[in-house]
Amino acid sequence: MAKEKNEKNSENEKVTFNIDKDKNFSEWFTEIIKAAELADIRYNVKGFLVFQPWSVLSMESMYDLFEKELQKKGHKPYWYPSLIPESNFMLEKDHVEGFAPEVFWVTEHGAGEKFEERLALRPTSETAFYQMFALWIRSYRDLPFKTYQRAQVWRYETKATRPFLRSREFYWIETHNAFASLEDSKNQVKEDMETTETVLHQKLGVPYIFFERPAWDKFAGAVSTFGADTLTPDGKTLQLPSTHILGQNFSKPFNVVFKDKDGSEKLTYLNCYGPCISRIFAGVIATHGDNSGLVFPFEIAPVQIVIIPIAAEKDPAVLKMANKLKDELFENGYRIEVDDSDKTMGEKFYYWEMKGIPLRIEIGPKELKENHIVIFRRDTKKKEVLNPADLIDYIEKTAKKEIIKNLRERADAKFKEKLKSAKDIEELKKYLEERNLVRINFCSLEKDGEECAGIIEKTLTAKIRGKRADIQENPSGNCVVCGKKANVVAYAAKEY
Amino acid sequence: MAKEKNEKNSENEKVTFNIDKDKNFSEWFTEIIKAAELADIRYNVKGFLVFQPWSVLSMESMYDLFEKELQKKGHKPYWYPSLIPESNFMLEKDHVEGFAPEVFWVTEHGAGEKFEERLALRPTSETAFYQMFALWIRSYRDLPFKTYQRAQVWRYETKATRPFLRSREFYWIETHNAFASLEDSKNQVKEDMETTETVLHQKLGVPYIFFERPAWDKFAGAVSTFGADTLTPDGKTLQLPSTHILGQNFSKPFNVVFKDKDGSEKLTYLNCYGPCISRIFAGVIATHGDNSGLVFPFEIAPVQIVIIPIAAEKDPAVLKMANKLKDELFENGYRIEVDDSDKTMGEKFYYWEMKGIPLRIEIGPKELKENHIVIFRRDTKKKEVLNPADLIDYIEKTAKKEIIKNLRERADAKFKEKLKSAKDIEELKKYLEERNLVRINFCSLEKDGEECAGIIEKTLTAKIRGKRADIQENPSGNCVVCGKKANVVAYAAKEY
Repeated sequence: MAKEKNEKNSENEKVTFNIDKDKNFSEWFTEIIKAAELADIRYNVKGFLVFQPWSVLSMESMYDLFEKELQKKGHKPYWYPSLIPESNFMLEKDHVEGFAPEVFWVTEHGAGEKFEERLALRPTSETAFYQMFALWIRSYRDLPFKTYQRAQVWRYETKATRPFLRSREFYWIETHNAFASLEDSKNQVKEDMETTETVLHQKLGVPYIFFERPAWDKFAGAVSTFGADTLTPDGKTLQLPSTHILGQNFSKPFNVVFKDKDGSEKLTYLNCYGPCISRIFAGVIATHGDNSGLVFPFEIAPVQIVIIPIAAEKDPAVLKMANKLKDELFENGYRIEVDDSDKTMGEKFYYWEMKGIPLRIEIGPKELKENHIVIFRRDTKKKEVLNPADLIDYIEKTAKKEIIKNLRERADAKFKEKLKSAKDIEELKKYLEERNLVRINFCSLEKDGEECAGIIEKTLTAKIRGKRADIQENPSGNCVVCGKKANVVAYAAKEY
Repeated sequence: MAKEKNEKNSENEKVTFNIDKDKNFSEWFTEIIKAAELADIRYNVKGFLVFQPWSVLSMESMYDLFEKELQKKGHKPYWYPSLIPESNFMLEKDHVEGFAPEVFWVTEHGAGEKFEERLALRPTSETAFYQMFALWIRSYRDLPFKTYQRAQVWRYETKATRPFLRSREFYWIETHNAFASLEDSKNQVKEDMETTETVLHQKLGVPYIFFERPAWDKFAGAVSTFGADTLTPDGKTLQLPSTHILGQNFSKPFNVVFKDKDGSEKLTYLNCYGPCISRIFAGVIATHGDNSGLVFPFEIAPVQIVIIPIAAEKDPAVLKMANKLKDELFENGYRIEVDDSDKTMGEKFYYWEMKGIPLRIEIGPKELKENHIVIFRRDTKKKEVLNPADLIDYIEKTAKKEIIKNLRERADAKFKEKLKSAKDIEELKKYLEERNLVRINFCSLEKDGEECAGIIEKTLTAKIRGKRADIQENPSGNCVVCGKKANVVAYAAKEY
């Protein structure tokens, strides 16, 4: 057996999943959710999903990655109530305007006894956190005050809902932090961007650009909003984590003050950051999946390794060896399964490929005799032959590092291809139709640029995502819409 | 320095927490929640808490312990919607009667647009899970079908709320499982009891007895209910996990059927199990805490080891050594802190004792010179002297095992002392006043015993908890209330 060989021999078997992901992404996405049992959309409340084990196990790992990173950076975990009194919302004008239309309201209990005041199912938790900050923060010694919670939030979305991408209940982490100065809160935004890079890009392999959003597209109540956009294969931007400089917009109405070194009382500066786990999960599967189904990064795979015993009915030693390996891998902390069902080998191969398990191990009488095992990597679809004694070493030293590196590099290359620069509106139109993220000269991201953005939205159904937050780009020329002198380099794309 | 010495020298320092837990448990409980910053009750929705890092970190570890155990036993994790349509509730008569008075209802969204049907914030999720079971379960091959979710639930409690013990929003795990036979579902109840023993007793050190509840005290919709009762220091029972045989009460209205081997369609038998994490946390701190504050089992301590550098201002090598140790322990997976604040040594000792950290390490110039460290165990309040090179070994081999063993044995002994047998109503009264869990001869746990239970509740403010599920006990004599021939050995106690 060659050291590496393509998987040819199973081509004749039954195909369980085969959709051209790049051409028909929408169909691919809908079908893989069903086929891999990621979520069931048949629950009888509109816009709500039942998340199934194959997504939950992975999203739990994603929670772990983000939470460990946040804890390392000094954020402490809290669990806040899901209900927020209506009067809390009223305290920040932009916030209530932005969120009130989307709130689910609890108005009564039991047989219909009304609450004195309506209670919001939190659509986000600024107005829950900051009233407590006001009780807890006393002095400059308490700052920075860095917190987070893992939680679900509810928003009555009026746009069409799509599983993971946009639903009326979703799972996220929200950090909320108080600082003594605007400068400190801006540094927190930088740190949030580093957290995003570490987890989203390095560990999950999802490429993105952080944009500072235009004035008309900020988080309701924020001074500045920075959103990390990735691109789905159909060329739409998907906002993954966003981080917000809230200035003193919330600390003023909620009276989040501190006594400074000089004894004077000052308002704190607040910041929040929101990695949405269920949406990032969509980003991960949209980025790495292929025509055969899901492809999971090793670290967040619901099952990381599947062992397929071959011709086990002919030789009882095969299953014994498979289970021995399973126990050994389990002891070493891996999520592992042995598929000893009565499906055919081909069915098993296709099924677990569709499910996206990073490593498949094949053991049969031949392998036993020759004291080797065959390992199939889902990301490369290549096989390797190994001595079983080298397996743990292979996983630790090769698979764990190589797989994510390969996935990330592949995704980065694709993402880079989708970045185009358009010199005029025709070229912008063409690039948008070709499903790209398009760099343009643009008049302004302040209030006075909203009209041009409106024209792009109306005529090209695309949105201005903002300007890059990672690098400084200088405009040269005129706004591709109004022809006035451009004062910014902006990016436009279709949106999810 | 002696190998072991009592902590005497800090007695002159400021005492931060000192409440007689056994005599004034209610005060102790209220004050430790505040002092250790476990939860803040000042949130402005009645009966709702903000859980703070010192409880959240510990409860996250508790989730881990339970979830690992459940996954090992074949339960798969799901995330269900928090909202359940009112019509789902209506399908099981007893269930709706039991839960409808406690439901928080979502009735509208946005500016006040009404939903066609009221949506319940789930008080428990039978009526969410089983409609999906009906879609997923097809054949006997799909059984047993074992699931769970970690989630919060909401109940509009009319009794006085108390943090962790009874609040209107609480954090739990609920398992929901379908079987081909009643026998299989009864075996699941046994397995749930084993899970309880493994986690609650072995790993968390909380003693309890599983009681089969009287007919009038079953879970709404259950055939039989089994509840694990522990005792708080004020002699009240606290129900920790409960497990329920639901028979076909839910599978019938929700049509959870399967095709059996013989091709016939049959109703499944359902079971559910509910370890309430926030309540078990109350059980853990109530069981192990002492007059100086919290005492955490090592495995779930929010911080497991605190290092106190002594006289660090005189010798920079002290802090260096402290941080070196910290890094080493962190690398080994421990939750660790160095307290280099400018508090006095005594303040630090009392503070971290109050917070319940299992191990305290003291390092000063003397220790550096003699190449040893002093370790203080919170559970025994004894000190030991160690060579730093032996530290990891000490933690792994001694501390991790010894601490929980000591806590469990101490708690078991106390619990055992509280078990009394009363031969008549006077003795029952006396033992209840002395805050015990009291064994009595009782007429019946079926419907016809409810009157006698009512008399006990009215005259002695105690409740019949049921009969032991772990051992078979045979009555000999007459019911202590009505004097009729007893047909069961029951237990009575005050209740939380």
